Amino acid sequence: MSKQGATVWMTGLPSSGKSAIAGVVHRKLLDRGVPTELLDGAQVRESLSKGLGFSREDREANVRRIGYVAKLLSRNGVVAICAAVSPYRATRDEVRANVTNFIEVYVECPVAVAESRDTERRYERARLGEIEEFTGVNAPYEPPERAEVHIRSDVENVESAAAKVLRTLEMLSIIPPAPNEEWAQQEEDIRRRLSALGYI
Amino acid sequence: MSKQGATVWMTGLPSSGKSAIAGVVHRKLLDRGVPTELLDGAQVRESLSKGLGFSREDREANVRRIGYVAKLLSRNGVVAICAAVSPYRATRDEVRANVTNFIEVYVECPVAVAESRDTERRYERARLGEIEEFTGVNAPYEPPERAEVHIRSDVENVESAAAKVLRTLEMLSIIPPAPNEEWAQQEEDIRRRLSALGYI
Repeated sequence: MSKQGATVWMTGLPSSGKSAIAGVVHRKLLDRGVPTELLDGAQVRESLSKGLGFSREDREANVRRIGYVAKLLSRNGVVAICAAVSPYRATRDEVRANVTNFIEVYVECPVAVAESRDTERRYERARLGEIEEFTGVNAPYEPPERAEVHIRSDVENVESAAAKVLRTLEMLSIIPPAPNEEWAQQEEDIRRRLSALGYI
Repeated sequence: MSKQGATVWMTGLPSSGKSAIAGVVHRKLLDRGVPTELLDGAQVRESLSKGLGFSREDREANVRRIGYVAKLLSRNGVVAICAAVSPYRATRDEVRANVTNFIEVYVECPVAVAESRDTERRYERARLGEIEEFTGVNAPYEPPERAEVHIRSDVENVESAAAKVLRTLEMLSIIPPAPNEEWAQQEEDIRRRLSALGYI
């Protein structure tokens, strides 16, 4: 088993599907015996950032704290899977600079689709002015410019998206390959992307 | 090499010597190739708890956050060494219940001795009312009732104290023994303590 750690960073609009994909990646890594931790923004807030709000400053503090924990885990051989809106490019790049094997996963989703999946009606409440600084409505989202993985969650399902993340980790030799699985359909697409980014 | 993680928790008055002992333990573990991280309360505050103050509520939040990070590290085979005043017994016991191999290290030191080592003159400023809720002056410290390691930092030096912590980790099979070192003088004392606590 590989001893390499990594920080798999899911970024995207609220309700874009980050947590669902992160959950499947986490479960599959556990099944394979890879040391892994799931740092889901909403849940981690309770442990790390109680009292922080949603201003730009507070959001960035929350992202930096997740990044700090991911740094400690990933440099000790753990694959830390982080799911957080993390709307600002500069803050994500700051995390990238500090952690081991930063793998940015851009979960792209049109606002209309994300809103249709938002069971808590946060998009609607933001439009009504009941939530301030809500990403995608009245706060900006800055998409990654060279994410290691690009998922279109409006057209790809969760299992397929998770498989793409896992295959990327395999192709970067962060985790050992899982033989006897059918990855052929993902492979060409991933290879093209990693090649364009200069990894392979 | 053992794959067991642990949370080594140094508790004691401000300026009792926690950070110095923690630093030596950390360096010696690194020298031995044991995966380890040092979570020093004062430094971790910057990464995890910016904005928190020193009220009982804020102190406990800081201790819980260090405990949360230690939980993630220790269950992944890392020896997390934490140094924090952590004055409340109940909060430390809460951390104990959540982490892998909690090893409580009580760094006992009379207030007068701690104060004489306090280069920042915080004890003095607390007495003058310039610092509120300062542990040992105008806020309580609740000593552990069954710490795995008990250090008297007014009479033991840092190297000896660190050796006692390391030997405890060895005797609990958390780290492999370091052969060819002279531990005999520590051993009987540690064995008596671990036996009284029902470990061995």
